[in-house]
Amino acid sequence: MTDVAAEQRDAPPVRSLPEDSVGLVEPRKLHFADPLHLRCGRVLPQFDLMIETYGELNVDSSNAILICHALSGNHHAAGYHSPEDRKPGWWDTAIGPGKPIDTNTFFVVCLNNLGGCHGSTGPTSINPETGRPWGPTFPVVTVDDWVDSQARLADQLGIQQWAAVVGGSLGGMQVLEWTIRYPERLCHAVVIASAPKLSAQNIAFNEVARRAIMSDENFHDGHYQEQGVIPKNGLMLARMVGHITYLSDDAMGAKFGRELKQDKINFDFGAEFQVESYLRYQGEAFSGRFDANSYLLMTKALDYFDPAARFDHDLVKALENTTARFLVLSFSTDWRFAPDRSREIVNALLAAKKPVSYLEVDAPQGHDAFLMAIPRYMDTLQAYLGRIAEEVC
Amino acid sequence: MTDVAAEQRDAPPVRSLPEDSVGLVEPRKLHFADPLHLRCGRVLPQFDLMIETYGELNVDSSNAILICHALSGNHHAAGYHSPEDRKPGWWDTAIGPGKPIDTNTFFVVCLNNLGGCHGSTGPTSINPETGRPWGPTFPVVTVDDWVDSQARLADQLGIQQWAAVVGGSLGGMQVLEWTIRYPERLCHAVVIASAPKLSAQNIAFNEVARRAIMSDENFHDGHYQEQGVIPKNGLMLARMVGHITYLSDDAMGAKFGRELKQDKINFDFGAEFQVESYLRYQGEAFSGRFDANSYLLMTKALDYFDPAARFDHDLVKALENTTARFLVLSFSTDWRFAPDRSREIVNALLAAKKPVSYLEVDAPQGHDAFLMAIPRYMDTLQAYLGRIAEEVC
Repeated sequence: MTDVAAEQRDAPPVRSLPEDSVGLVEPRKLHFADPLHLRCGRVLPQFDLMIETYGELNVDSSNAILICHALSGNHHAAGYHSPEDRKPGWWDTAIGPGKPIDTNTFFVVCLNNLGGCHGSTGPTSINPETGRPWGPTFPVVTVDDWVDSQARLADQLGIQQWAAVVGGSLGGMQVLEWTIRYPERLCHAVVIASAPKLSAQNIAFNEVARRAIMSDENFHDGHYQEQGVIPKNGLMLARMVGHITYLSDDAMGAKFGRELKQDKINFDFGAEFQVESYLRYQGEAFSGRFDANSYLLMTKALDYFDPAARFDHDLVKALENTTARFLVLSFSTDWRFAPDRSREIVNALLAAKKPVSYLEVDAPQGHDAFLMAIPRYMDTLQAYLGRIAEEVC
Repeated sequence: MTDVAAEQRDAPPVRSLPEDSVGLVEPRKLHFADPLHLRCGRVLPQFDLMIETYGELNVDSSNAILICHALSGNHHAAGYHSPEDRKPGWWDTAIGPGKPIDTNTFFVVCLNNLGGCHGSTGPTSINPETGRPWGPTFPVVTVDDWVDSQARLADQLGIQQWAAVVGGSLGGMQVLEWTIRYPERLCHAVVIASAPKLSAQNIAFNEVARRAIMSDENFHDGHYQEQGVIPKNGLMLARMVGHITYLSDDAMGAKFGRELKQDKINFDFGAEFQVESYLRYQGEAFSGRFDANSYLLMTKALDYFDPAARFDHDLVKALENTTARFLVLSFSTDWRFAPDRSREIVNALLAAKKPVSYLEVDAPQGHDAFLMAIPRYMDTLQAYLGRIAEEVC
């Protein structure tokens, strides 16, 4: 056996990426040198946004789709960062050549929002004024601020008007805000599994998550980074609570039932039921990849979102100046943002005499359904966006 | 002005208790000297139960009603411990002279369950073998064990057969277990807002509560009592999560909406929305009155409850030997133990050809409704128990 053969044997098998994948992708960090005035009254003198793009921008820059991410998402929506990557981006089911958000047709842009922890300016970034991480001193950002920063991103990419802005959950709120804030800068708005504002129950769950993080002994009033620790237990709990609200009762039942890890109960406080160890695993994994201060910011952005508030709490009035055409999608067993919450948006659009298509997708998976390859959902997205590609806005 | 007049002026005003109250009540601690064999395999060599009783036991001891408490309940179900008491017992709406559980007719017994923290033997009691608090070494008790201990209580009170055993939520599970375990020892079973076993989602919420308590820096593996501290943050979080599941989304919305404590948002992480400060207040109050180890035990008793398991997971078979007549009640907006869960019990009873009356009460309050004076609910309870009073079992 030659050395070459031995090397080949020991090398990892060459893995071919799926044909309908955007393939290997590379994130880019864009710098924005002009100050951004935030809703809280503070100003970010400059900022970075980490982005990924898939597909090619056409000559008249009319084929761009912006993807807005949800609570724990980021810029890596599709494809792989290396051939060894086990998992593709978070919405790879929907984005790729021939997929509903078809990269043969569209130039797809996804970013990590301000305040996030995946490369865009946020609590883990260095505050240039102090030379230390922002940590808890990072300003409280809102959906408005995100949309403003995304408009600046569009400017920098030379995109005057998005063919569509698309997002699920908190991402859908950004889409809604786009239609109100920059009506002329998008043709289509795709609002998935979202709501025009949080309910008291939604806020309550967020508050539990925040309390869990902030009462962790390693939180140190948000200055944990300087102490070289993370509030791991708090983040775990926050994610566990969140996860329960992402799945339907039925989905959890179907997935775990009352199955035990071993075949008998132990009469102790370890994780005995499958659902317990699943949640612990999810919580643990999350605590290693997400920043606690970012999580606090994201939940606050959710709580504060209420575009109707500045229109006398009248959503119809808030939507009056929108010019986008809307596709609103909800999922039958979603109880975090139930179909009723999507219908609030649809009804307001109808009252404002705006063009809107609405589908409630019959899906057992709860809120999580918006990330899944459910045929009727994917087909609807594909048909809708397919029509966009052929039309002039 | 004489001294007497001055004294009278300074004395607190004499408060008259409501006429339909059982009035001043005194808890009693009963001792049980014989060992209790627990489902976990361990044995309690002796134990105490703290109880309260209201009304008079009749000569043939046929008018006794047992009230089983839920997760955070105790023996103090009705009346006042002193004239200064601001609040009566936890089910004072239902128990009293002329009330649905009419103390003019019935002898009503309520106890603090084993493992609790209100006087019955539990983690805060002294383990006679060590001379120190049981703390986390207290055995894991189950609904079966509670029912066994309640049967011993009945023996000691000279009650061969309960006219009815009544309970809501976890209390309803004890009622169900009574009908299976001691069929001949109760005439009627009133199962309110309960379920034949927890769903994966129910277990998941309990697991979050347990993790919150057990990851608190002051938990000390359950030995906090010896350290002179309590895992306050963990208990707060556990209660906050619990509280969200006790209220319906609509009830929370109606009660708090998106109302702010002040009239503007502060862009900080204090409790800004009314619902946040309500939850914090509830959590804080609870952490001062409930023992963390007891809370762990109560949630485990919920998780483990599954009487059908020992009958090939067939609830019909489990109920086959019951002789009680059943009243099952549920509440339309209860999502902790939704009406569907009650209908599982009803359907199994029907399949087993057992007498059962069922009512789903239309009530916006969610799971908490079972503690409230909702007219249709109270009237139903009154009518049902009124008939019992006149019949021979």
